[in-house]
Amino acid sequence: MSEPAAATTRDDSPLAIVCGGGSLPFAVADAVAKRGRRAVLFAIRGWADPQRVLGYPHHWAALGRFGWFCRVARQEGCRDVVFIGALGRPAIWKIKPDLKTLQLLPRIFAIYRGGDDHLLSGVARIFEEHGFRLIGAHEIAPEILMPEGPLGRERPSERDDVDIAKGFALLEAISPFDIGQAAVVAGGRVLAVEAAEGTDQMLARIHELRKNGHMAAERGVLIKAAKHGQDRRVDLPSIGPQTIVGAARAGLAGIAVVAGSTIMAEPAQIAELADRERLFVLGLRHASAA
Amino acid sequence: MSEPAAATTRDDSPLAIVCGGGSLPFAVADAVAKRGRRAVLFAIRGWADPQRVLGYPHHWAALGRFGWFCRVARQEGCRDVVFIGALGRPAIWKIKPDLKTLQLLPRIFAIYRGGDDHLLSGVARIFEEHGFRLIGAHEIAPEILMPEGPLGRERPSERDDVDIAKGFALLEAISPFDIGQAAVVAGGRVLAVEAAEGTDQMLARIHELRKNGHMAAERGVLIKAAKHGQDRRVDLPSIGPQTIVGAARAGLAGIAVVAGSTIMAEPAQIAELADRERLFVLGLRHASAA
Repeated sequence: MSEPAAATTRDDSPLAIVCGGGSLPFAVADAVAKRGRRAVLFAIRGWADPQRVLGYPHHWAALGRFGWFCRVARQEGCRDVVFIGALGRPAIWKIKPDLKTLQLLPRIFAIYRGGDDHLLSGVARIFEEHGFRLIGAHEIAPEILMPEGPLGRERPSERDDVDIAKGFALLEAISPFDIGQAAVVAGGRVLAVEAAEGTDQMLARIHELRKNGHMAAERGVLIKAAKHGQDRRVDLPSIGPQTIVGAARAGLAGIAVVAGSTIMAEPAQIAELADRERLFVLGLRHASAA
Repeated sequence: MSEPAAATTRDDSPLAIVCGGGSLPFAVADAVAKRGRRAVLFAIRGWADPQRVLGYPHHWAALGRFGWFCRVARQEGCRDVVFIGALGRPAIWKIKPDLKTLQLLPRIFAIYRGGDDHLLSGVARIFEEHGFRLIGAHEIAPEILMPEGPLGRERPSERDDVDIAKGFALLEAISPFDIGQAAVVAGGRVLAVEAAEGTDQMLARIHELRKNGHMAAERGVLIKAAKHGQDRRVDLPSIGPQTIVGAARAGLAGIAVVAGSTIMAEPAQIAELADRERLFVLGLRHASAA
């Protein structure tokens, strides 16, 4: 999917940030403020951090209130919209749709039945049809993208390099099936493949397997990569301090991601935690990067 | 890997059945007895069902006691060995090796570092070098193989057929990576891919995801297939009553496996449970069957 060419041009209208969980939304809001642009958070109840939201211009939002969003965002003068932060696939019975959303429901339902890609790009299209322009968070704040090279002090061993290569090859092979963007490989053996459960749960599984002793001696590597054809505006893979904690608990040697195609939450804290846990965190220009 | 051509010829020597968990070992022992051949169970402590073992000639065995096994199996006059039943990847620190195993340890360790295939076929080779002949349980008791067609009353819908095709294609794509033999697909979306955790745990994950509402409305299908190049004597995929229970808890519509390449434990109970839970269980002659 192509990105709007004008996205990074200067725009003085306030930016609407539809704000899920974690610290990323605030990193983006700070980066926007630093550039002198006003950012308004639309904090999704149940996901956005209620304490940190207080420090920014914000409205509390709920899924399914699309009519409300259109109205309030227009009142705020917002035209550009960024989706950022953890959200997960929402429980459909938790959504209380407003009238506008009700009208869109058959379409939303059809989108919902597809894979993650369809969900996100379908929702993006609906926003655009209502006069908003969807922009990738990394276009507004490129500093949130993982650079090439290591974060922190540790480096992968030659064995880790083999695991990394195998992991990227595996993610490449499953990319056409529109599934998760992560795997764990240890000593040449694929221990886990992420699908609907998400990276944190996958790492917790490795921790369990290891605790029960059903595991090779090698530490292993978490590999993440964007799927082909993924809508980069709404769904780049991301890592944050939580990923380091999970990888450390899983006994891994490190994390390898695609430089320029992976969002980092709190890079300084990632580096510090990685050094403390003696994990490498590596950005690679990989051939299969989307 | 080729199978020994003479495996199914009549042999009057007792058969050693190295017996893991579940009911399959007993189904094999019964099938062997029905053919008039003596079967001796080498029941692996911690895995084999201690109650059911009592009904058969048996010795309690522990992993890592290979010297002991060679001695006792020879005393029993066994030459042919069958591995059958759940075992999982053993916790290496739980193994207390005897002298013979200690001598083999460097080799076992090297095998252990590879994928599952290497583990199993490596162990098989060690048995053969010590004068035993490793035979697939399905060669001794072909009635344990899943036949073509349905087990029980239910049939897949056209939508399920799409999920089944996608699942088999995915398993085909990941086969070169020597990982798990199962996936769950629902409404065209891949929800889970099995790697080191095993099918039961993967189904439990789907149950969790569904309970938390993070799921599409479609029921979905469990698809299982043998990896290419898998040593069929020791590692065919299998389903049993437990698989039906797990699939039902996960809200799935059914299970599709490769006919002739999948072992069934207790087919009558599988069919009964599947009917009660309204799940289809289907054996397919799939092009990608190993």
